[in-house]
Amino acid sequence: MCGINNAYVLVKTSGSAAIDVLDKIRKMEGVKEASGVYGNYDIVVRVESEDVADMVIRKIRTLKGIVDTNTLIVAF
Amino acid sequence: MCGINNAYVLVKTSGSAAIDVLDKIRKMEGVKEASGVYGNYDIVVRVESEDVADMVIRKIRTLKGIVDTNTLIVAF
Amino acid sequence: MCGINNAYVLVKTSGSAAIDVLDKIRKMEGVKEASGVYGNYDIVVRVESEDVADMVIRKIRTLKGIVDTNTLIVAF
Amino acid sequence: MCGINNAYVLVKTSGSAAIDVLDKIRKMEGVKEASGVYGNYDIVVRVESEDVADMVIRKIRTLKGIVDTNTLIVAF
Amino acid sequence: MCGINNAYVLVKTSGSAAIDVLDKIRKMEGVKEASGVYGNYDIVVRVESEDVADMVIRKIRTLKGIVDTNTLIVAF
Amino acid sequence: MCGINNAYVLVKTSGSAAIDVLDKIRKMEGVKEASGVYGNYDIVVRVESEDVADMVIRKIRTLKGIVDTNTLIVAF
Amino acid sequence: MCGINNAYVLVKTSGSAAIDVLDKIRKMEGVKEASGVYGNYDIVVRVESEDVADMVIRKIRTLKGIVDTNTLIVAF
Amino acid sequence: MCGINNAYVLVKTSGSAAIDVLDKIRKMEGVKEASGVYGNYDIVVRVESEDVADMVIRKIRTLKGIVDTNTLIVAF
Repeated sequence: MCGINNAYVLVKTSGSAAIDVLDKIRKMEGVKEASGVYGNYDIVVRVESEDVADMVIRKIRTLKGIVDTNTLIVAF
Repeated sequence: MCGINNAYVLVKTSGSAAIDVLDKIRKMEGVKEASGVYGNYDIVVRVESEDVADMVIRKIRTLKGIVDTNTLIVAF
Repeated sequence: MCGINNAYVLVKTSGSAAIDVLDKIRKMEGVKEASGVYGNYDIVVRVESEDVADMVIRKIRTLKGIVDTNTLIVAF
Repeated sequence: MCGINNAYVLVKTSGSAAIDVLDKIRKMEGVKEASGVYGNYDIVVRVESEDVADMVIRKIRTLKGIVDTNTLIVAF
Repeated sequence: MCGINNAYVLVKTSGSAAIDVLDKIRKMEGVKEASGVYGNYDIVVRVESEDVADMVIRKIRTLKGIVDTNTLIVAF
Repeated sequence: MCGINNAYVLVKTSGSAAIDVLDKIRKMEGVKEASGVYGNYDIVVRVESEDVADMVIRKIRTLKGIVDTNTLIVAF
Repeated sequence: MCGINNAYVLVKTSGSAAIDVLDKIRKMEGVKEASGVYGNYDIVVRVESEDVADMVIRKIRTLKGIVDTNTLIVAF
Repeated sequence: MCGINNAYVLVKTSGSAAIDVLDKIRKMEGVKEASGVYGNYDIVVRVESEDVADMVIRKIRTLKGIVDTNTLIVAF
């Protein structure tokens, strides 16, 4: 197996969506940990998946209430 | 009493919402001070509350006209 | 005369709104210069007015197509 | 020939729009390369055109699903 | 009295300087409150002074260990 | 037990310091995971400690080669 | 005449350098206006010059005390 | 062949280092294109290499005069 398997996704949500969005992300396969946080992001997601692109673009980013994501690919 | 009681919330609003949003924030219990400001944020809120998470997520962030918040938890 | 009279307003617009927004800003009293720019902002407005707060909050920010502003008050 | 002919456009998109937006950008005349990327931007576009302003403001920015662009003009 | 009297100064510090910097800021005349915070800034200073420019440029910014400041002038 | 126990620390490093800094962070007590990443940050640290303030200010931030940190406190 | 002649340069300075830097910038040929400002930048420079690249890279950026610049090229 | 082969590296430089840094980057194996740009970054590097991590961390980031990099890994 090769390619990109590990990432942190920093998420911004709108209004009070953070709680629902977090609930849905935690149930996704490939999510090792997800936390609601204080600061200039609202949620941090630790992704470990055979297909990070699919996780981020088709699963996480399509959730209602997400307004921005910043995906940090694990390098080493 | 323990946990997170003190924070500054930096708020961005849309259009001319800043005035109304500020008015509503100033009336909330747990808000020590709130100011309309010039710069890359529109409002600064000084929160002192037994439940900062509730203040930020359920009370402040659900106000119509808020587009982004950045909560700085007081450390020391 | 005292108070805040001078500012630069950095503006972000949505879609192709920049051209129309710029056209309207240039016709406002109190605008010395306004330019469409390349970069992480779309328009720079040089404001010289007796009431900068009114210019920014009630006149500029209420224009359709503006999504964010950053007002830099002139200090010296 | 003179003026601005070369630029990189950093693009943010909403939801899962990145794939469709990228597809449309790649078909535009004046686009040398366009890539979907991980990070605090979603797409990088390498523009080489006789009219960069027209490319960015009228063609790229009007695509549905784009929420922000940052145009870096090539200097040297 | 007129002019700029009220501001919040968001401060970034280097290394472990935040504690010393905060200690010095708290002793300055014109500082109503100063807090060490978690997030993309390290210290928030609430300034109420007859000369905000002097406070920010000559007093706060010259402290050793400060690497960046963002002054939000209170508008209303 | 109460107070702040959980956080993500986003770290920027200078030059090629990321590898050494990461090595030192991984050996610290209270660090659950630390990863070198691509993007607008260089390292993500998952902290779970009885004293997050001490971890961030006295241990992590004093490492040579760190130029900026952004601590996201876990809220829920 | 063609090419890039018009720009706004947003400048960040260190410590109390802003005053000296501003003084030097105001004396440069090609600078129409330069202002010390409050916010996430310290100085705004309005450049109108036959060689913006030379102004920004060789003249403005080499001044002692400047730590960052963001050049917004005028598009229209 | 698998793994990360393609990236854009956005670079900030100090003073007038951009010209020298760009010159050195253009001579590196694995650099398809590198451009000096106007905006909130100074150089954009298009990397196509079998070892992007090595290119970014050991080769590009160790150049004198670079103060910050943001590596956008190509996803699709």
